Amino acid sequence: MIKTPYLLFLGDAPDQLAAKVAQGIKDWRPENVVGQLRLEGCQADVGMADMTLEEARQADAKTLVIGVANRGGVISHRWKDVLIHALEMGYDLASGLHNLLRDDADLVKAAQEHGGALHDVRVPDDDYPIAKGRPRAGKRCLAVGTDCSVGKMYTGLAMDAEMRRRGHRSTFRPTGQTGILIAGDGVPLDAVVADFMAGAIEVLTPDNDADHWDHIEGQGSLFHISYSGVTMALIHGGQPDALILSHEPTRKHLRGLSGYPVPPLETLRDLALSLARIANPSCVVAGISINTQHLGASAADALCRETEHRLGLPTVDPYRHGAGRLVDALATL
Amino acid sequence: MIKTPYLLFLGDAPDQLAAKVAQGIKDWRPENVVGQLRLEGCQADVGMADMTLEEARQADAKTLVIGVANRGGVISHRWKDVLIHALEMGYDLASGLHNLLRDDADLVKAAQEHGGALHDVRVPDDDYPIAKGRPRAGKRCLAVGTDCSVGKMYTGLAMDAEMRRRGHRSTFRPTGQTGILIAGDGVPLDAVVADFMAGAIEVLTPDNDADHWDHIEGQGSLFHISYSGVTMALIHGGQPDALILSHEPTRKHLRGLSGYPVPPLETLRDLALSLARIANPSCVVAGISINTQHLGASAADALCRETEHRLGLPTVDPYRHGAGRLVDALATL
Repeated sequence: MIKTPYLLFLGDAPDQLAAKVAQGIKDWRPENVVGQLRLEGCQADVGMADMTLEEARQADAKTLVIGVANRGGVISHRWKDVLIHALEMGYDLASGLHNLLRDDADLVKAAQEHGGALHDVRVPDDDYPIAKGRPRAGKRCLAVGTDCSVGKMYTGLAMDAEMRRRGHRSTFRPTGQTGILIAGDGVPLDAVVADFMAGAIEVLTPDNDADHWDHIEGQGSLFHISYSGVTMALIHGGQPDALILSHEPTRKHLRGLSGYPVPPLETLRDLALSLARIANPSCVVAGISINTQHLGASAADALCRETEHRLGLPTVDPYRHGAGRLVDALATL
Repeated sequence: MIKTPYLLFLGDAPDQLAAKVAQGIKDWRPENVVGQLRLEGCQADVGMADMTLEEARQADAKTLVIGVANRGGVISHRWKDVLIHALEMGYDLASGLHNLLRDDADLVKAAQEHGGALHDVRVPDDDYPIAKGRPRAGKRCLAVGTDCSVGKMYTGLAMDAEMRRRGHRSTFRPTGQTGILIAGDGVPLDAVVADFMAGAIEVLTPDNDADHWDHIEGQGSLFHISYSGVTMALIHGGQPDALILSHEPTRKHLRGLSGYPVPPLETLRDLALSLARIANPSCVVAGISINTQHLGASAADALCRETEHRLGLPTVDPYRHGAGRLVDALATL
């Protein structure tokens, strides 16, 4: 578990997109953030107060979170001076970078000397069990997509936030590095060894109170041949009670797979449900989440209406319309 | 690639079952074996000539293969004396044990001094790519099971052997440690990191001549929630042209999952085929392999006939009946 509150490190981000991890943390867990730290030349701004390491420490910040992608696969000298200074001041560090904090001898030395933790959220624990398949108490919801990168994480975060806003019991369960940095823990599923994927998801979504919902972050797609095994492990390890179908309507083909068509939502519904019922015979498809970022407002509304009519399931873009109707659908389960 | 021929190390195996890896190598690749090495008290015998390290070396043995399970997760002193002596004589070592040769400092030192290789076949290469999904030349066959451990490896080995006996072009492609020791290379899929599972299978089954068949060793089951993600990666990474349905008719429930029923063959057929056609739209189900080891001869024959009639697919137990009819079915594709 990464200690909160955070100071978000934006470094010398060349543009706003490079700081999307920091933006995600600020959007979904603003209560966990005291401010942002930007180096000279930084072109990103997530809308938090600019602070020095010293100012944030006085505001009780515990962890400096690297909320920005780096370039070239190295941690630059400019960054490293800041990171080492932070460790000297008593911060922990957290990162989702490909190049690991723990592989940098200088950071390891400073962390040891000053008692700081180095959280590399791409690296899974190495002691997940084989999945047992035992039915677990509490409710679980999982978004499955017609393709990768269609808004499954956003859907889960939005449903969790809406449930908590209503005073319902709900937890977002991250399975990728951005989600883990947002929520403070989770399983980086794409880095888990094959035999332990489903078991890791069982550990992530344990027994809970009967009225509690886990919103499990989706990964990959059953139709995306590069990552379908990861999606399968989520469905069988998560034993969801409810599935949300996620879709991006303007894709010409699956992401990175030019010969592979995007399947119809009906095909996703039938395949995902038949697989989910192996682990949880009472699983249902509860709603549809459409990512309409590339459509105008009227086209987006029309598409959601048409889809809702066609499949008989509540259909929204949670970014445009909120996740309320998806949460309503869970309330009946 | 593990160098052949092998000397099979049976150690102090307490019974025949403990030497099943050695037995598999002797059964399927006798041409790669010069003999067996047994320590005093060994209760297993795979039916090869007993040889000392020196005798086998004179018979040109290149690799000492540990063909026996050990107890307690350690390499005993008795074993280690033999293994180090082998390295001193110029042998390579190969092992599928959980405790790795490369984690034993004495073996590493001896291997370095004498130029020997230590093959731990449970450990995958760490440089597999993300799967690309590009259609590949040549033909591929994959056995998929109603459950784990129903005879998928045996089916693949038997079909490969029958095709080669007929003079057809065929390669067995191992995905588990026993298969890898039998064939000399392969991918230990259950130990591959999630993101690279399907890519590893693409590397294992590359472009080939149009009339060449890969027989990919199956793993897990789409219905076994502990391992279904591994099976999915095999189906999507292997892009099979033909599936063989594998079944063990006396199971009361899925292996190790007491609440999970064994699905009917029809359910496996429909699910596996719909998933396989995502990667290869021309995939077909070619036949059925039933493991009848717990049935008498007449019950076994009757079950195969009944199943063949019900599903309209050639149905055999390759151990009882040979794999000829399954190979015949591939010839029409």
